[in-house]
Amino acid sequence: MIVIGELINTSRDEVEPAVKERDAEFIQKLAKEQEEAGADYIDVNCGTLIKEEPEALEWLVTTVQEVVDVPLCIDSPNPEALKRGLEAHEGKALVNSITGEGDRYDEILPMIQEHDAAVVALVMDDSGMPNDADDRIRVASELIDNLTADGIALDDIYVDPIIQPIGTDDGMGMHILNAIDEITNKYEGVHITCGLSNISHGLPKRQLLNQAYLVLAMSRGLDSAIMDPLDDKIMSLATASDTLLGNDTYCANYIKAAKSDKLTI
Amino acid sequence: MIVIGELINTSRDEVEPAVKERDAEFIQKLAKEQEEAGADYIDVNCGTLIKEEPEALEWLVTTVQEVVDVPLCIDSPNPEALKRGLEAHEGKALVNSITGEGDRYDEILPMIQEHDAAVVALVMDDSGMPNDADDRIRVASELIDNLTADGIALDDIYVDPIIQPIGTDDGMGMHILNAIDEITNKYEGVHITCGLSNISHGLPKRQLLNQAYLVLAMSRGLDSAIMDPLDDKIMSLATASDTLLGNDTYCANYIKAAKSDKLTI
Repeated sequence: MIVIGELINTSRDEVEPAVKERDAEFIQKLAKEQEEAGADYIDVNCGTLIKEEPEALEWLVTTVQEVVDVPLCIDSPNPEALKRGLEAHEGKALVNSITGEGDRYDEILPMIQEHDAAVVALVMDDSGMPNDADDRIRVASELIDNLTADGIALDDIYVDPIIQPIGTDDGMGMHILNAIDEITNKYEGVHITCGLSNISHGLPKRQLLNQAYLVLAMSRGLDSAIMDPLDDKIMSLATASDTLLGNDTYCANYIKAAKSDKLTI
Repeated sequence: MIVIGELINTSRDEVEPAVKERDAEFIQKLAKEQEEAGADYIDVNCGTLIKEEPEALEWLVTTVQEVVDVPLCIDSPNPEALKRGLEAHEGKALVNSITGEGDRYDEILPMIQEHDAAVVALVMDDSGMPNDADDRIRVASELIDNLTADGIALDDIYVDPIIQPIGTDDGMGMHILNAIDEITNKYEGVHITCGLSNISHGLPKRQLLNQAYLVLAMSRGLDSAIMDPLDDKIMSLATASDTLLGNDTYCANYIKAAKSDKLTI
């Protein structure tokens, strides 16, 4: 399971002022905590700052990389901000995100090529957001075909099937599971990631739905998620699921995690 | 999710003496607690008593049915004990279990027909226990074909793919998931159940593995499990998974469970 730690995001109440005030200590603590908890990437997102975003994202990348060894997921809908973030990043970043929308694809692709970055491919195109599994499969296929034709390796592509709330469409969970199934069968080696907590938007006990949906999606081939690595329970379920899905020879990782007291029942 | 409450089993230290001493109060309390926690069937198993088993199983059926409204899962490898249990049972019981072994099939089938019972079909035959997914699919198919030819409705058949420990074969989790996939695709309407906790035998933090495996298996079509209904966390994950798998119109069950404070994060 490739965990993308989601906590450095200015849509969170305590993070926005910290970024605005360039509170390096606060941000670096949040980054280190996520790395120590097992995050494979640290997501940095300051999209709420709008005009200041490019400068703030560059600062976030530099500030976080001072204290962590894992690479960053540079997360913005703004190409200028992504460019500044990528230029500041050392090593192989993950860019979040490219889409099938004509302008956006053409703007983001050269940056990924230039910096040899990995990329999150959001399954939307000029026709808008996806509805059902078929929409997701169609747009994902076009994106993967185009990206690989443009020289991006399958292993550098993280398809995001765009999770929408189960509370507004009780078939949404199955649409996405079926899409994950089909995409991973069709493109062996491609990664699937998602903004997990969208599934529970508007419902009570959200963490419970997030936990269950992570495991359900892992059963269909999801191997990454943008999620909270400080949530011990969801991290424990991810570890257990990896073991149960045959990704843990002799259950060695699971036993090691249990011995290190890292597993929450 | 069809929950078969597993707690009345003489292999549990506190249950064996209670059954031997015919402690109705203890047994009835355990039955009621499981019913109140959401069990759809109460399993009764006194297989450790061997010679006394038929008489004890009859007593268990009568004693438990005095206090619960849900039907029982009458659980024994001993045909004589099953017969006594079934004769004592009022309403439609679930018999656990028939297998593809020649003698056993021929002995158990007439009881199921006579009492119009549902039946757990364990995927083993005269060649022994199953190893991989193919063994499970082959034996399940033979059992389902034979049972339906003998007049048992698909909706009355609960295939048990025989969960073996992930700790002794790190591919076991996938063997069983793939078997569930194939069996539910081939026989729409058949139930899949399992003795869930076998998956974690010999490993630490067993409940965590049981929780994750229940959700993984539900993603592939498992719709029942022999499990502990007093484990709030696993019951909550089952409720959440049912909702996420599209089995909960407008998420009404989930919201109701949350409002009744029945969901554990």
